[in-house]
Amino acid sequence: MQTIIRSVSKEVIIELESPFVVIGECINPTGHKKLREALLRNEYDYIRQLAINQVESGADILDINVGVPGLDEVAFLPEVVELVASVVDVPICIDSANPEALAAGLSVAPGKALVNSTNGEEAMLEAVLPIVKEYGAAVIGLTMDDDGIPNDPERRVAVAGKILERAAKLGIPAENVVIDPLVMAVGADSSAGVITLRSIEMIRREFGVNISLGASNVSFGLPERPIINQAFLALAIGAGATCAITNPMKLTATIRAIDLLLGRDPFAGRYISHYRSMQQKLG
Amino acid sequence: MQTIIRSVSKEVIIELESPFVVIGECINPTGHKKLREALLRNEYDYIRQLAINQVESGADILDINVGVPGLDEVAFLPEVVELVASVVDVPICIDSANPEALAAGLSVAPGKALVNSTNGEEAMLEAVLPIVKEYGAAVIGLTMDDDGIPNDPERRVAVAGKILERAAKLGIPAENVVIDPLVMAVGADSSAGVITLRSIEMIRREFGVNISLGASNVSFGLPERPIINQAFLALAIGAGATCAITNPMKLTATIRAIDLLLGRDPFAGRYISHYRSMQQKLG
Repeated sequence: MQTIIRSVSKEVIIELESPFVVIGECINPTGHKKLREALLRNEYDYIRQLAINQVESGADILDINVGVPGLDEVAFLPEVVELVASVVDVPICIDSANPEALAAGLSVAPGKALVNSTNGEEAMLEAVLPIVKEYGAAVIGLTMDDDGIPNDPERRVAVAGKILERAAKLGIPAENVVIDPLVMAVGADSSAGVITLRSIEMIRREFGVNISLGASNVSFGLPERPIINQAFLALAIGAGATCAITNPMKLTATIRAIDLLLGRDPFAGRYISHYRSMQQKLG
Repeated sequence: MQTIIRSVSKEVIIELESPFVVIGECINPTGHKKLREALLRNEYDYIRQLAINQVESGADILDINVGVPGLDEVAFLPEVVELVASVVDVPICIDSANPEALAAGLSVAPGKALVNSTNGEEAMLEAVLPIVKEYGAAVIGLTMDDDGIPNDPERRVAVAGKILERAAKLGIPAENVVIDPLVMAVGADSSAGVITLRSIEMIRREFGVNISLGASNVSFGLPERPIINQAFLALAIGAGATCAITNPMKLTATIRAIDLLLGRDPFAGRYISHYRSMQQKLG
């Protein structure tokens, strides 16, 4: 199944047969003080630079989140979307917990955007899906609902099914819904990795949809986090994940290696060209 | 299926449900000039140190290879086996292309050793399997035969089947045969990774036996080899590999992370204790 996301000039295809899609996570003020201050002071140069750096480091899509207390997301999100679209030509992933801000962002996003995110909560489904439909966007659906995050793969699959069904009722086809089966910290619960990996396999088998994940939460609280994040990405991609919201500066090299090992990079072309462009950036 | 390897005091169980087993590869003079010279000059301190370092870095079993041109392997292999067994208490993997040297090594190896290796070639099967049987050892079987290394998973599975069948005829049970489905360099053939990963899955499904791999060959000729090796290990373990002949100093951290993510490390105990012991080694 192909999920297609577009900017004015670029089309990104998320599917099992193609290289893994990297959604750059860095334009998000949560835990990112410098960006928070830049947003509050309208200092756009730093945001532009974050956009350019991520694309140069291999981001296929850029996530944009401007959720800072004291800042009017509805007014500000479209501004930053336009700013980012003026310096890079990759598709955009509009990221907000506020449905009104999502709509405002989508209204200016060029092409076909991705929405981050809905989940299986009634209020979220009712608020977010009509906006996704109205703008012809695609949406990430997190496998949690009004009862929280299920602790077993079966119920995560059930939540995914509910999101897909509700989307279908509004005329949003399954290819425009990317399921994120969520991963908790393995440091807090050592079955967290297995639950997510099984969920990926089961959702993929049951619905055939694309699977996204946040790839750094898994290592929270443990030492040497990059080692865990890299291993998790490989296991998750091996299990059927097709895109991730992640830091391209940190994980693109690993992702290129995984694509190569999975036969998705003829003659190692993408792996080597990523290596060369990183060498140039350093040199 | 459990493959059990033993020293005098330690038992190592290779199986899907347990942590991945690390077979330390560093006592092997191929491409290791310092060791080659130490072997030729009978400088045993360096070999002792290699053994100790690997075990401290997480090796569960130590591979011992003394194949240097001009050195009498049949006389020398048992000497080094005894040397290693005198400083560390992990089981041994006797590594030689010379069946006579294998027998000599096995005759002094404490407990139940692993033999590296046989393959599907007639001459190898006839020479190596009777020795494995005689000493009650386990053996690694490489999926290549008189026609070379098959370029598709189906024929690698067939070679594995042949090795298992020939072993069974001599009374060597399947649990004492660990299959290595071989991995070629992805830089030379970008389908090499997929062929090996499919072979792992198919051999596991067809015969249920344990799977070993050499984990660094895959990145030969490419830049940033550790990134590829780490990703390959995760993909291979996710596919069903249960042990690897590898450098514990370089890859144990990744292996501990993978075990943790696959739910084989309750409370992240092994992951954290490896991290701590590496910190101590550094500090």
